[in-house]
Amino acid sequence: MNKDFLFLRACRREQTRRTPVWIMRQAGRYLPEYRAIREKADFLTLCKTPELASEVTVQPVDIIGVDAAILFSDILVIPEAMGMCLDVVESKGPVFENPIRSAAGVESLATDGVVERLDYVMQAIKITKEKLGGRVPLIGFSGAPWTLASYMVEGKGSKDFRNIKSLIYNEPRTAHKLLEKLADTVIAYLNKKIESGCDAVQVFDSWAGILSPWDFEEFSFRYLKYICEQLKTNGAPVIVFAKGVNNLEKLASLNCNVIGIDWTKDIGEARAEIGDKKALQGNLDPCVLFAPKEKINAETERILERYGNGSGHIFNLGHGILKQTSPENARYFVECVKELSAKYHVQSEAKSGNY
Amino acid sequence: MNKDFLFLRACRREQTRRTPVWIMRQAGRYLPEYRAIREKADFLTLCKTPELASEVTVQPVDIIGVDAAILFSDILVIPEAMGMCLDVVESKGPVFENPIRSAAGVESLATDGVVERLDYVMQAIKITKEKLGGRVPLIGFSGAPWTLASYMVEGKGSKDFRNIKSLIYNEPRTAHKLLEKLADTVIAYLNKKIESGCDAVQVFDSWAGILSPWDFEEFSFRYLKYICEQLKTNGAPVIVFAKGVNNLEKLASLNCNVIGIDWTKDIGEARAEIGDKKALQGNLDPCVLFAPKEKINAETERILERYGNGSGHIFNLGHGILKQTSPENARYFVECVKELSAKYHVQSEAKSGNY
Repeated sequence: MNKDFLFLRACRREQTRRTPVWIMRQAGRYLPEYRAIREKADFLTLCKTPELASEVTVQPVDIIGVDAAILFSDILVIPEAMGMCLDVVESKGPVFENPIRSAAGVESLATDGVVERLDYVMQAIKITKEKLGGRVPLIGFSGAPWTLASYMVEGKGSKDFRNIKSLIYNEPRTAHKLLEKLADTVIAYLNKKIESGCDAVQVFDSWAGILSPWDFEEFSFRYLKYICEQLKTNGAPVIVFAKGVNNLEKLASLNCNVIGIDWTKDIGEARAEIGDKKALQGNLDPCVLFAPKEKINAETERILERYGNGSGHIFNLGHGILKQTSPENARYFVECVKELSAKYHVQSEAKSGNY
Repeated sequence: MNKDFLFLRACRREQTRRTPVWIMRQAGRYLPEYRAIREKADFLTLCKTPELASEVTVQPVDIIGVDAAILFSDILVIPEAMGMCLDVVESKGPVFENPIRSAAGVESLATDGVVERLDYVMQAIKITKEKLGGRVPLIGFSGAPWTLASYMVEGKGSKDFRNIKSLIYNEPRTAHKLLEKLADTVIAYLNKKIESGCDAVQVFDSWAGILSPWDFEEFSFRYLKYICEQLKTNGAPVIVFAKGVNNLEKLASLNCNVIGIDWTKDIGEARAEIGDKKALQGNLDPCVLFAPKEKINAETERILERYGNGSGHIFNLGHGILKQTSPENARYFVECVKELSAKYHVQSEAKSGNY
């Protein structure tokens, strides 16, 4: 592994010549090149075909110029490998035919052989690493237990999450049993991804923000903590993105390297709040990419300025890029980060080379 | 007006014998008595028929035992009265046939005669006051300009709000023109509601939380501030509920009496943050009403304990009650607040009577 990649150095809060940048969902529907591949295969087939998954993973490196690749996949491949029947409906998003609603449902979920059934992911990592040829590092990701459990219990996206919340309030032991199974699976899965060649991993707790502070502690944070403590990272940085969670001090107590933040926070205040404990990833509103170029430039500059001098910032959007975004604007945003960020890094001390 | 209603005293942070309680969307689909009325009239007809609107407004006072009524209506009656064609589709929520997307669209919105066209609301207030007969005070509400504009530009509910955000980024002057028109209309509308008999008003900025700190300042907060400064309240307390906004200190600078908070915040920390500047309204997770009674009791107690001693707390959910909630649990929650809260108020100094 080339430990001196700009992105990896920033995760570890080591000095860099500029701020690295990548985009959540950068391998996705906003790219015509991605849509061309999707014409040949549906979403799940794409996830499960290493050759195709690696192809779309590399696309934004070539087309948009990002500083890291993230393996194309979906967080719901885990529940599927545990035995749930997943259907991705184009207009409605992922749907589980038989959502988990009882202790028996939790009991029926397989934990043995899950990582083996996800071998297609490991194969995709190996092929992607070859295709990347050392140009940029490769990130692997997983959903966090709370977010996975929410999907598995709701069966689909939800506005109010009343099924998963009914479960935690009425059958807390069943909920914990489910979360424990998921946590152990996530650890095994991410360990295997790192072994297979991922240079960093990101844990998405997309629905952590829908909980009260006490429920967050008990049903989300506890499992993030367990995962961060148990991962065998072999030096690969760990990024935690618990969307909508405002207690950054709590997140900063995790045994991880980077905290992702959404666009509703001032990254300067976030940095002041957590001090030098963690690097920060974020946090441009994905909708700014629908703005004129001057606005994209100005908002990028604002975030760089708010973060301030020094390393420890990985530029990203505050959430996944929207499918209606023009690739030109995405490319322009990446260029802005590259050009505008150098002045916030001490050039005299930065060595030459990739970082 | 009976200024000594428990609810009004708490809004003004005056001493009370216990914590008052009401429930957002308390006049709604979770009540069989409401559904019985809805069988006779569709949603908009219900809003526009003072006799029926007042009937469902009073229902939760009788059935659930809340300490305040809130006039049954919808925030989108304002855009409709400004000339937009509103359709409430049962399964999809409110839809505008021709969303606002341009300066011409904004220009076409009427501002004259809007309050006159909303006279059915004022009639409903008068009938409701008679039906309430001084038992509890009546709250009137309005959407905030940002939230109204979001609906008017998106045309319906949205996940990413990319149309309204595209407007503020590409045509900020058009967006401000729209927000100004709305702000002036909201002021006239709420003033008229107060004149017609409302004892308090609440401004809902349900989508304020989807903005970056800078966009919030420019497109949401600026208009909340203007409204709070311009309202002729005649002593009626003003409640601002900007859902998802975490900068409570900023909200506390508004010329209002009460700040509503959702369930993702610790109300004790919120109180510590804003000090004694404002009363606080909230903040039980609506999904807790799907829990067993012991849990409803314990979570109610937790919030009372976190808020601590003294007045200035209006108990409520952190968001609207869900239609699947059992009325029995809603009633039990209200009883819990009434019974558990007395010990946090100084009994020796509380006078006898309604407060």
